[in-house]
Amino acid sequence: MSVLIVGSTALDSIKTATAENPRLLGGSASHAALAASFFSPVNLVGVVGEDFPPAYRRLYQRHGINLDGLQTKPGRTFHWAGEYERDMNQRRTLKTELGVFADFCPELPAAYRNTPYVLLANIAPALQLHVLAQMNRPRFVAADTMDLWINAARKDLLRLARRVDAFVLNDSESRLLTGEDNLVLALRKIHRFGPRYVIVKKGSHGAVLSGPEGLFLAPAYPLRRVVDPTGAGDSFLGGLMGFLASSRGLLETNLRRAVLHGTVVASFCCEGFGVKRTAALKLADIGRRYGELERMMQF
Amino acid sequence: MSVLIVGSTALDSIKTATAENPRLLGGSASHAALAASFFSPVNLVGVVGEDFPPAYRRLYQRHGINLDGLQTKPGRTFHWAGEYERDMNQRRTLKTELGVFADFCPELPAAYRNTPYVLLANIAPALQLHVLAQMNRPRFVAADTMDLWINAARKDLLRLARRVDAFVLNDSESRLLTGEDNLVLALRKIHRFGPRYVIVKKGSHGAVLSGPEGLFLAPAYPLRRVVDPTGAGDSFLGGLMGFLASSRGLLETNLRRAVLHGTVVASFCCEGFGVKRTAALKLADIGRRYGELERMMQF
Repeated sequence: MSVLIVGSTALDSIKTATAENPRLLGGSASHAALAASFFSPVNLVGVVGEDFPPAYRRLYQRHGINLDGLQTKPGRTFHWAGEYERDMNQRRTLKTELGVFADFCPELPAAYRNTPYVLLANIAPALQLHVLAQMNRPRFVAADTMDLWINAARKDLLRLARRVDAFVLNDSESRLLTGEDNLVLALRKIHRFGPRYVIVKKGSHGAVLSGPEGLFLAPAYPLRRVVDPTGAGDSFLGGLMGFLASSRGLLETNLRRAVLHGTVVASFCCEGFGVKRTAALKLADIGRRYGELERMMQF
Repeated sequence: MSVLIVGSTALDSIKTATAENPRLLGGSASHAALAASFFSPVNLVGVVGEDFPPAYRRLYQRHGINLDGLQTKPGRTFHWAGEYERDMNQRRTLKTELGVFADFCPELPAAYRNTPYVLLANIAPALQLHVLAQMNRPRFVAADTMDLWINAARKDLLRLARRVDAFVLNDSESRLLTGEDNLVLALRKIHRFGPRYVIVKKGSHGAVLSGPEGLFLAPAYPLRRVVDPTGAGDSFLGGLMGFLASSRGLLETNLRRAVLHGTVVASFCCEGFGVKRTAALKLADIGRRYGELERMMQF
């Protein structure tokens, strides 16, 4: 089945200790859409400016991503510039030029409205709600967020939390949202906001899925070398939703496997700048690494 | 089968944001011995002073721990005082009074020398080597260490690494020892020092076992409340070695399960001051939580 993915579509200029890469394809929706495309058809919703490179559009298309919902507006594409420190855990934003993204209002083509799986990647919660309002009873909705919205749009975010099946955030965001240092207690509080499933991303420490069947503790795939972690969280979620949409059977069993597939795609994402490594992946690469991860969890 | 455990036997005065507890039973060997005692008979090697409370000796005995190798010397027992900050990840040493521990030389009773499993808990690597020199071909030897010895006794430590089956350290120590930030690369370097198995403890992020069959990624048990993490690493290793000594079959399969049993005992350790929670445990409590952890890892 298909996944609708809405979020930012951007150009990222990324600097690390060893390299500098200007205007790479980036944004939460781009990373998530590519990651999901290995498992399921993707309907993309986003906005770009007139400067958006045709090569990036072709990259989406090569992955079978439906671009009917990708608006092109007069002006410049959202541009983000950031710098990583040597240990890759610290990131500094150098520039945020919103461009056409400043007035983004996601409008769904009619054919998108029945998409059964919906991934509301990281954008303002008001826009995420606006997308949901246009959908016809989707089967499963996941929403990601970030610290900015917890601080600046908490009310919208809590309205959103009531309307999604899975609410996704990272560990520091879970503390920020709940005021609770302890993960188990933070999860309990987030469930009270409404979502049946909560997924906490912990970067190189893995992820935790919390749901009616309890917790699922997923490790990260141990990488020998991290080139650029930008978009890893979005790739994780894209891979997760793409896999989920392709699965039959029990939701919770599928969700656990989906978390691990998301983990694997996210690990590849970190091995190249922007979407470089992800875009070059074959489904067999994912399967091989999934098998490896499985063996690292067996006892 | 039995486990020989050598390390420090101490009195710990522990301060947290909410409580202060003077002169609790502590030390690497005490925590490890209690943890191991749930699974296997334990032969303890250590030293205490004349001030060592008889109640603590009785506590060991109630757990069937053989104290023939626990020396009592004129003077005072090793006393450590420390303080935890609110988030429990930062610990500050307030006082270290070595007492009789300053001149500790582990001498093994004849009956100890054939113990098949040996846990060299954290003490100076020269003393760990001295214990090994007294053993008759043990079946499996694990050695723990700390940053102090990496900095101050690196040569001894590398001699030790060549002579053990499993070398154990935490993630920051693995970086200190190898100069390598990346865990996979650090593990590779440590294996080159000699040990077939390397175990990296990551606190609330779990542990990694590295061996001939690849990596095993073990999560930590997610606790609702951490009262006092002192001794959690020692409990982990004690539980691990106790379980291993009680198991038949394939070493690597047993080791993976042993890591998880260590994880479970360590989680209990954190739920009380000193050894309070561990000392009150029943094997059934451990089994129940192991089952819980197992379900959190299934997919």
